[in-house]
Amino acid sequence: MTEAPAALESGPAPPPVPRLVAPKRHADEHTPLIANAWYVVAKSDEISRQLNRRRVLGRDVLLYRKQSGEPVALSNRCAHRSYPLSNGYLDGDELVCGYHGLHYDAKGFCVRVPGRGAPSGVKVSSFKLIERAPLVWIWLGDQSLADEGLISQHHPTEDAGWTAVSGYFHIKSNYVHLHENLHDLTHFSYLHAQTIGTKEFAEIPITVDIQDGEVRTRRELLNHPAPPMWEELMNLRGKRVDRIIEGHYCSPGLHSARLTIRDLSPKANDLEEFHLRILHFISPETQDSTHYWWFIARDFAQTSAEVSGAVEVGISNTFQQDKDALEAISEVKRTDGNTSFREASFLSDRPGMATLRILQRAADAEQPQHADGISRA
Amino acid sequence: MTEAPAALESGPAPPPVPRLVAPKRHADEHTPLIANAWYVVAKSDEISRQLNRRRVLGRDVLLYRKQSGEPVALSNRCAHRSYPLSNGYLDGDELVCGYHGLHYDAKGFCVRVPGRGAPSGVKVSSFKLIERAPLVWIWLGDQSLADEGLISQHHPTEDAGWTAVSGYFHIKSNYVHLHENLHDLTHFSYLHAQTIGTKEFAEIPITVDIQDGEVRTRRELLNHPAPPMWEELMNLRGKRVDRIIEGHYCSPGLHSARLTIRDLSPKANDLEEFHLRILHFISPETQDSTHYWWFIARDFAQTSAEVSGAVEVGISNTFQQDKDALEAISEVKRTDGNTSFREASFLSDRPGMATLRILQRAADAEQPQHADGISRA
Amino acid sequence: MTEAPAALESGPAPPPVPRLVAPKRHADEHTPLIANAWYVVAKSDEISRQLNRRRVLGRDVLLYRKQSGEPVALSNRCAHRSYPLSNGYLDGDELVCGYHGLHYDAKGFCVRVPGRGAPSGVKVSSFKLIERAPLVWIWLGDQSLADEGLISQHHPTEDAGWTAVSGYFHIKSNYVHLHENLHDLTHFSYLHAQTIGTKEFAEIPITVDIQDGEVRTRRELLNHPAPPMWEELMNLRGKRVDRIIEGHYCSPGLHSARLTIRDLSPKANDLEEFHLRILHFISPETQDSTHYWWFIARDFAQTSAEVSGAVEVGISNTFQQDKDALEAISEVKRTDGNTSFREASFLSDRPGMATLRILQRAADAEQPQHADGISRA
Repeated sequence: MTEAPAALESGPAPPPVPRLVAPKRHADEHTPLIANAWYVVAKSDEISRQLNRRRVLGRDVLLYRKQSGEPVALSNRCAHRSYPLSNGYLDGDELVCGYHGLHYDAKGFCVRVPGRGAPSGVKVSSFKLIERAPLVWIWLGDQSLADEGLISQHHPTEDAGWTAVSGYFHIKSNYVHLHENLHDLTHFSYLHAQTIGTKEFAEIPITVDIQDGEVRTRRELLNHPAPPMWEELMNLRGKRVDRIIEGHYCSPGLHSARLTIRDLSPKANDLEEFHLRILHFISPETQDSTHYWWFIARDFAQTSAEVSGAVEVGISNTFQQDKDALEAISEVKRTDGNTSFREASFLSDRPGMATLRILQRAADAEQPQHADGISRA
Repeated sequence: MTEAPAALESGPAPPPVPRLVAPKRHADEHTPLIANAWYVVAKSDEISRQLNRRRVLGRDVLLYRKQSGEPVALSNRCAHRSYPLSNGYLDGDELVCGYHGLHYDAKGFCVRVPGRGAPSGVKVSSFKLIERAPLVWIWLGDQSLADEGLISQHHPTEDAGWTAVSGYFHIKSNYVHLHENLHDLTHFSYLHAQTIGTKEFAEIPITVDIQDGEVRTRRELLNHPAPPMWEELMNLRGKRVDRIIEGHYCSPGLHSARLTIRDLSPKANDLEEFHLRILHFISPETQDSTHYWWFIARDFAQTSAEVSGAVEVGISNTFQQDKDALEAISEVKRTDGNTSFREASFLSDRPGMATLRILQRAADAEQPQHADGISRA
Repeated sequence: MTEAPAALESGPAPPPVPRLVAPKRHADEHTPLIANAWYVVAKSDEISRQLNRRRVLGRDVLLYRKQSGEPVALSNRCAHRSYPLSNGYLDGDELVCGYHGLHYDAKGFCVRVPGRGAPSGVKVSSFKLIERAPLVWIWLGDQSLADEGLISQHHPTEDAGWTAVSGYFHIKSNYVHLHENLHDLTHFSYLHAQTIGTKEFAEIPITVDIQDGEVRTRRELLNHPAPPMWEELMNLRGKRVDRIIEGHYCSPGLHSARLTIRDLSPKANDLEEFHLRILHFISPETQDSTHYWWFIARDFAQTSAEVSGAVEVGISNTFQQDKDALEAISEVKRTDGNTSFREASFLSDRPGMATLRILQRAADAEQPQHADGISRA
């Protein structure tokens, strides 16, 4: 009864399979997280001979170092009765479950069940890690695809001639909104008016370059005052400057940016150009929360602890405003009863929207039957 | 294959489309909230030049006053990226979003995107408000139906000759249960035995008048002692009185009541009748929580701050008992594992049940395809 | 159209109705709770003339004693408006609802509605209780099946010659995992290494006897040191002992165990054998939480308050480790994003797995249409 009798073939064409959900073009907080990508899982100094656990992409991950110093990431869930392995202890390079004493090697293979020898085929997932101090990257998807070359070449934060400060935020919001926020500088004039924004920011023209799954932007703001925070730290009070701001969505786990400030009336011995490199490492914790590590490196006043302290405080305060805004938006979306709401977007949203399209396509590609054009949102 | 062959037409009639859910006659905590009705959204003094937000019918509503004093209600969700507009600021009568600086006028139209001019068609919902001091009413449903004449004529609480006290409760319970509670005086004898109840309350006959979607009740309790609280405040200790209690379900957002107490043995110069007008303003916050403002006005001891204070304390304590009971019931319904439970009702529940039928019909009428007799509960 | 035309009968057989979910053989945290069984609902001294409430199998149960001392259990939800009856009061043996004053007798029948007389057919569920001091058992399922003979014969904890201590834990985990934990002694060597475990525990052979829906185990550990806690309390430091450990899954609500320790080199006047009887009373509170009462009785040092105190502290600390482990596992299962995880099991898990099969079959037998082989998990 599942095949149509031949006589019917000349009749009207059967109705097409209905498309229950229109394909979604832009990632949002419901888009499945992307497994096949590199994400920062921890700072190097968070992984040690102490067992540590961290949730990334919804997975409970155990982190430790072998005696050689090599970092290890395993599923933090004993293959026997799901006890968190982080409650166990290390015996040399082997991990011992604190519930029944199963021993695992650093590849996740169970090598001993007390009293029962070595079982075959009992294993917890192990995840490839790449350490690029001061950070460690993880690949949680298909391990055969974990190509180290896919880690974005990020600017070294500890190069000679550069001094970096850094920080961490836990954000109760889906990570795609942080990517959008980072590509959007029009909010500097409002959300960050006290630190890094000036009112011109809302109106700067952008050039956007989208290729190979990356999105690059460039904004030039010529012959304007510097924003409050940099004016102070670069000693530019009352002066006019050129600012060049380059943004770069590199991958689901990284957005980088560069800021050049050019003093238009330098005195003798004054620095003519000031450079900042800003790195945003973004790791989805769950569908609704995000790990966010940031680094900001400068090539001026490199040895000044006072300037380092001021940058750290100023940037922390600024990014705290982003965190607060993203969390306020998530709460509105989660609780507002208006189910027919659709976002409006403007020309200045182009780089963010391009990034959301890239993220949506990458997520679609990981879903079963992704070729049918039906969104799984 | 979707049409039955002709030869089968003489066979037995096909089975009817099953009614998956029996139509529900009485509103309960699962009945959709009624959008096309007036609800109190705030007291007049809660709306000012400061941005305020309040959730009503699940909607996140922004409240403020124009420079003229006119109150404004908009959806508290920027049309661009869902940022809560209550985190922004007022620029004259315009509202400025705190994230990207979009300007909205008091009708909700976006009149300026910084650097992009005035976009066309970008708008947040605006909601009609009617101020009847000391309260402001809102209509959250179809704005074309927002007829001011539908606001129930409620007794002025600040009439000459009357003195009112008032209060507010937030109740973690669906609003229909508060309507039921207000039409039910049999619980006075038990839940409110210490304040406004006497044991006769459970047994007073009721007349119920149901018409035009309103439910009026009248109870007469002749030649009995006054309840503890009124006996004290009306100086009726040891006396016998007649009590006439009139209740009135006016609309989803209002229940009003009147109490007359007649002293059966007044001395010279004693007041013979004491009157109370009680107004219950009920605004569903979400499906599971309710805003509840109450007013109680009296025509005796009008200038006595002592009596006002005693009424306020006594009524607050009494209505706190109602809040506690409704919340205890909600918790039982939410957690008790008995899925086959069905409520029993008695003759004294007639006014409450009539009100629940009116509320259910009003909710049904707002649902798509409401004519098919299938409940959407 | 629901019968296949005769002409098609000679064609290929129609595909079988798909089995959407494979039948589940072992109970887990999703298996429906078993209603038709006896569970401890309270200790005798928790039931008094004060109204008390306790949740068991998801049901909100009211507990009190009649004037005769007989314990009563009713559904804690008034038949009228779901008010928790535990907020009411006792009037002799009758229960009075605190909301509207409905009177219920100890069988749950509503015998009076104030002002309306005795309604017919208004009733709250009543549940059979059996008191076996110091415990009271409840049957929450089909009351006609509540056969007192099905209460497992548990060892009297207050027999002459025995002294017992006891305790209670609330565990945020499904009860089947506690049953599994109790049948599994291999974890003693790891989780309880400081108290009742020695490293030999992980390797002791087990005999398992499964019959009549019960699971009995026996472990003999001959000529070994005693575990730390018992070595101390039985004054066996430095000695070698035989240990015989018998475990017994009796019913969904009870697991009992016996421990015999035989001193292999007793001096004159020394006790040669030490016996412990351990009773684990297990009552599912909800699908995700469990009441757990334990008793441990000894036949040595019966009058020593010091030994009683040491046993109580030592066992409390030990069982706290079990509670912590079970809760950590529940949290991992609830939050880990690895949906393809399947537990590995070993030979030492045989008694636990046998118990989980018995629990799953009992749960299946209570589900409608349980004969079709389709799991309802």
